[in-house]
Amino acid sequence: MARRTDTRQRMLDSAADLFHTQGYHATGLNQLVTAGGAPKGSLYFHFPGGKEQLAAEALEVSGARLGELLRQLLHAAPDPSAAIESVISALARNLIESDFRRGCPIAGVAMDATGSEPIRQSCAESYSSWQRIIAEYLVTQGIDGERAGALSVVALSAIEGALLLAKVNRDLAPLQAVTQHLRKEFS
Amino acid sequence: MARRTDTRQRMLDSAADLFHTQGYHATGLNQLVTAGGAPKGSLYFHFPGGKEQLAAEALEVSGARLGELLRQLLHAAPDPSAAIESVISALARNLIESDFRRGCPIAGVAMDATGSEPIRQSCAESYSSWQRIIAEYLVTQGIDGERAGALSVVALSAIEGALLLAKVNRDLAPLQAVTQHLRKEFS
Repeated sequence: MARRTDTRQRMLDSAADLFHTQGYHATGLNQLVTAGGAPKGSLYFHFPGGKEQLAAEALEVSGARLGELLRQLLHAAPDPSAAIESVISALARNLIESDFRRGCPIAGVAMDATGSEPIRQSCAESYSSWQRIIAEYLVTQGIDGERAGALSVVALSAIEGALLLAKVNRDLAPLQAVTQHLRKEFS
Repeated sequence: MARRTDTRQRMLDSAADLFHTQGYHATGLNQLVTAGGAPKGSLYFHFPGGKEQLAAEALEVSGARLGELLRQLLHAAPDPSAAIESVISALARNLIESDFRRGCPIAGVAMDATGSEPIRQSCAESYSSWQRIIAEYLVTQGIDGERAGALSVVALSAIEGALLLAKVNRDLAPLQAVTQHLRKEFS
């Protein structure tokens, strides 16, 4: 079982990266199999639901990974204002280091594959989990639940939108403007 | 020349709608020609650069159309706070009336076709034009240029992100949270 698990996990990891940079429709079946270093024909062995199942699960992997990073960065910062800046800086660094290819790991597929209910649900769950992580962090910082809920939705929206604009414009200015704005809101 | 112009414009209009709802890669050449009611083979006659040229020009059409709506809604409102609410309400209505298929008319392709420089530039120009329309409106309302610039970037980012989240979650809550937040910022 160990090898089966390894292959499956490798396929998920490389799929997560391909979907991150290329979206859903531009990512072909052959590319998904080849990039994972898996033998041809193994896609349907590990993922009987094919590309759709692989995508839904790969997005869960991406969502959980970014959620973990978010939690770490928020709780490592000295205060909420520094915390939100630290999160946006990490996303901006990822964008720069990938020559503006790696924005939000799930937004591309989320926009691109809304016709698939399993994929839509997987994306929605990631977004909800990130929003809850921000809201729960704000509550630990003494902000009341209702304001924490609203502010976390605004922060996630502004960050997602700024990542999109920065990627398309090949320019970090939208992330910088949103950082300045959210620093004040979080202080 | 009149007929040529009509066919070309019809192809642009229907392409704008297909790219809006489906993104770039999921929209096929046949679909683009058929939906425009154009004879087969006419795509390359009107758009020698093929699908890429058609997409870049269709996104300009979408960008200009939303820019015009934005300008009208902003200037028709009694004050900035009502103005931004009116803009977001129109976008939310479009989302609901299309069963959550029509979010931002260019974000799908923007995420999906960043490998194409003409398409990326077309998207970047639309985003810049929308941002300038908001900034210029804020200046007419007595807000100083620097603050108007920063606030317009934050507003556009938050609205784009909330449209994405609302579409994926099939729920207007993110747009409502962003409306409440921006109403305060604009007042």
